[in-house]
Amino acid sequence: MSDLRVHNFTISLDGFATGEGQAADAPFGHAGERLHEWMFATRFWHEMGGRRAGTTGADNAFAAMHGAGIGAEIMGAGKFGPPGWQDDPDYTGAWGSNPPFHTPVFVLTHRPRPSVEMEGGTTFHFLDASPAEALKTAREAAGGQDVRLGGGPSVVRDFLAERLVDHMHVVQIPILLGRGVRLWDGLEALDEAYDIEAVSTPSGVTHLTFTAKRE
Amino acid sequence: MSDLRVHNFTISLDGFATGEGQAADAPFGHAGERLHEWMFATRFWHEMGGRRAGTTGADNAFAAMHGAGIGAEIMGAGKFGPPGWQDDPDYTGAWGSNPPFHTPVFVLTHRPRPSVEMEGGTTFHFLDASPAEALKTAREAAGGQDVRLGGGPSVVRDFLAERLVDHMHVVQIPILLGRGVRLWDGLEALDEAYDIEAVSTPSGVTHLTFTAKRE
Repeated sequence: MSDLRVHNFTISLDGFATGEGQAADAPFGHAGERLHEWMFATRFWHEMGGRRAGTTGADNAFAAMHGAGIGAEIMGAGKFGPPGWQDDPDYTGAWGSNPPFHTPVFVLTHRPRPSVEMEGGTTFHFLDASPAEALKTAREAAGGQDVRLGGGPSVVRDFLAERLVDHMHVVQIPILLGRGVRLWDGLEALDEAYDIEAVSTPSGVTHLTFTAKRE
Repeated sequence: MSDLRVHNFTISLDGFATGEGQAADAPFGHAGERLHEWMFATRFWHEMGGRRAGTTGADNAFAAMHGAGIGAEIMGAGKFGPPGWQDDPDYTGAWGSNPPFHTPVFVLTHRPRPSVEMEGGTTFHFLDASPAEALKTAREAAGGQDVRLGGGPSVVRDFLAERLVDHMHVVQIPILLGRGVRLWDGLEALDEAYDIEAVSTPSGVTHLTFTAKRE
């Protein structure tokens, strides 16, 4: 069975994965780009833009796990586009004409629409489904490879609550956002289902990895 | 001017410094002793009990900062005793006849009572005061040494909100409590006032230190 994996999922010290006030020009609300500056500094990030630059230390090693062995992604409606995108039948996502996924992507929404094929191998499919159902569909599309759970926080939380996530990489950065959407709400005793490691790096972030305990 | 310092203040991954259901036999509620197992393993902790045992690594180095140069402590009513202690005029705290403070301790309560002198140099004083007023009183009692802010979470939060804390050591452990009292609520942009370091140790905990930026 292929794994369901979360990568590069970044939260503030007070646990917010996105700020308040999400909009087309502010996908993370008042957090701005601060949550992901650690990643923008890495070679992983620069190489996605075709540049041979960026750090090659521990942050980069974690970041680069993002794509390897992934055959499909599941994302929430809030990652696909800003609030209200469902009202525009021609909207094709916040990710440009060549989105950085290059696999089938299953967008969870209560208002599904026909699939959209983009450049570079990404096809967006729209599902109104439970976490378990969505995972089953994404696994079939992944052709034996793993499925990435792309966020946002409420989607990750829903899949964690049902213990569907096999591997999770959370990056905690030393800022306090004060408001937004928390990752950890309602996940009491989640630690009992995972082996958890913490590694702080010189850039000031802490990488937390969760590996599901097998029977 | 002497510093106000927080030490060994431990939170779960989801930010709770104490669980739900605090009582005389459960000072941290449903969290039990899990929040402080990292500290119970250290030489610092064993030596307080007169035993030459325990780890001497990074966790111990941080833990041992607790007492050095401290001339007084400020604590909240919830650290002094379980809910309802104010109704017992003879109550002298949850810390035994020889409390581990060995300095004046200022207990914040809306129902002050006469001071109580304990064995070993600890005297409990009871204050109904604002954070700034309490700090002024504790500084005078500290005789030029630093003041420790002992918790709990709502007290630390109140002093942080007024930027009265000079040094703070927070220990984050990889458990999810799900409920209780959070440290970080309402502290947006706190990071702008501090230099923050993060260090994960082999025991699985992450030490976060906050050093106030000077003008």
